[in-house]
Amino acid sequence: MKYRRVALIGLGLIASSMAHAMRAKGLAGEIVGHAKSAETRAVARELFCDRVCETAAEAVKGADLVVLCVPVGAMEAIAAEIGPHLAPGATVTDVGSVKQAVVDAVAPHLPESVHFIPGHPMAGTEYSGPRSGFATLFQNRWWLLTPPEGVDPEALSRLRGLIESMGAKVDSMNVAHHDLVVAVVSHVPHAIAYTMVGVADHMRRVSQSEVIKYSAAGFRDFTRIAASDPTMWRDVFLTNKDAVLDILGRFGEELSTLQRAIRMGDGDHLHAYFTRTRAIRRGIIEAGQDTAAPDFGRAVEGAEGG
Amino acid sequence: MKYRRVALIGLGLIASSMAHAMRAKGLAGEIVGHAKSAETRAVARELFCDRVCETAAEAVKGADLVVLCVPVGAMEAIAAEIGPHLAPGATVTDVGSVKQAVVDAVAPHLPESVHFIPGHPMAGTEYSGPRSGFATLFQNRWWLLTPPEGVDPEALSRLRGLIESMGAKVDSMNVAHHDLVVAVVSHVPHAIAYTMVGVADHMRRVSQSEVIKYSAAGFRDFTRIAASDPTMWRDVFLTNKDAVLDILGRFGEELSTLQRAIRMGDGDHLHAYFTRTRAIRRGIIEAGQDTAAPDFGRAVEGAEGG
Repeated sequence: MKYRRVALIGLGLIASSMAHAMRAKGLAGEIVGHAKSAETRAVARELFCDRVCETAAEAVKGADLVVLCVPVGAMEAIAAEIGPHLAPGATVTDVGSVKQAVVDAVAPHLPESVHFIPGHPMAGTEYSGPRSGFATLFQNRWWLLTPPEGVDPEALSRLRGLIESMGAKVDSMNVAHHDLVVAVVSHVPHAIAYTMVGVADHMRRVSQSEVIKYSAAGFRDFTRIAASDPTMWRDVFLTNKDAVLDILGRFGEELSTLQRAIRMGDGDHLHAYFTRTRAIRRGIIEAGQDTAAPDFGRAVEGAEGG
Repeated sequence: MKYRRVALIGLGLIASSMAHAMRAKGLAGEIVGHAKSAETRAVARELFCDRVCETAAEAVKGADLVVLCVPVGAMEAIAAEIGPHLAPGATVTDVGSVKQAVVDAVAPHLPESVHFIPGHPMAGTEYSGPRSGFATLFQNRWWLLTPPEGVDPEALSRLRGLIESMGAKVDSMNVAHHDLVVAVVSHVPHAIAYTMVGVADHMRRVSQSEVIKYSAAGFRDFTRIAASDPTMWRDVFLTNKDAVLDILGRFGEELSTLQRAIRMGDGDHLHAYFTRTRAIRRGIIEAGQDTAAPDFGRAVEGAEGG
């Protein structure tokens, strides 16, 4: 059953992509938006919102679906503001990259009469802001939900229906497991990418222009993920601290072992290690989560080498 | 001036791509090949070599250009074998990812009468073997040369001409600087990618199928570079040990600093750090070394998120 009125709070890449997707497929009666910045509101009014409000409280009035699309660090203030204005029976969800911190920040401010179903669309690009959205962003991507125990089944299936209609695949899991999984597949890879780019930035004997010029040899892929929105990523690391530090600790141990094998000249260890990692890559391609085209199918810019 | 006879020793991704490129543009009178494996030789005969020899010594006879395309660890034995059979005035080059180790392994075995100009095409894909080559692999890619002091200018400019005709851009630098630059832009990024994939492989609480399923969130990009040829990468780390350990040491320090900021909840540090890294990404796109299309322009498989 399509939502009568969807309120998007925070109008960046995810919200604008949702709006484009809902419009393209006629999934919402009205799309109302709010963003802190007047400039963003103007872009949203022009490109993808039916109506834009100056406050979040105003935007959620009468909405049967409210989607919190602000950085995780801003969730609590927004929840406190909108809580008293939510329509009874409305569903509230969010698109934050961590879930325990969002539940802690948002749940206490919501009235009993609304259904809170936290969510996390695992989709994005290295771009951000209201102009960066597009209708197919969620196509064939995972959208994780962490519904609380005893959630209203009808509210859950309605939300799930909307997400699937935007092209995404839905999985449900508990909050703690979600935060660990994303630490492994996303947060720590980003931390490492940022660090590698930071190392290159500090080099004196290798110039920045050399790093840029020769980046196709592997470094380049790290810069793409290290170019994502700084505010979002600051909040991710501050709010998923335990899982991230756990995985970073393991990473450090693993790296020390590799470093030792290099120092000792242990070729058998290196060869065995590098062989094992190929299997995971094969699994990813077989699962349809990446293209098997050499170098992601980049055209001429495409190559990479030792 | 086009080479009369080019001998390719080792017939994997690079050699087969060179052969395809030289054939496509008529850059060599005859292309002779040698590989250790009979199966590889059969593929090469069918797909891209005019003639295939059972020994490297046989293959280099009468060639005016010899290209060593074997893993770095195999260079010394090959150089010892071919040294006595090289034609006076021939040019010998290689395509190894490190240069000091290749110079140490090869130069002592070459007669005075040949021109040895080490090289490194910074091009490749995550695939290997004689069937993986294609004519446009070098298009718009860097090919680094580390010519020794006093090199014959005519031999150098002829080699350079061949490389540029295959579509690559040539830069020259000294051997030590080469090995440091590639440690930063290629070898350490690969070491880190292998390590991250290794961490995921060892997790118990997050299943491998979950890692694969949700890999588009960032992890996936690491698996691509961690899927490269294990033998090549073993040799890279064994032979560029000093530069790699130097950069890995810096990486470890930098990662500890980031880890500490996360543990202390230092949001300002994190935000500043993540902002700085965006500039390098911009530089890479401006330099034409990557596509600005979101997510490398991957189609539906394309998205990524926190």
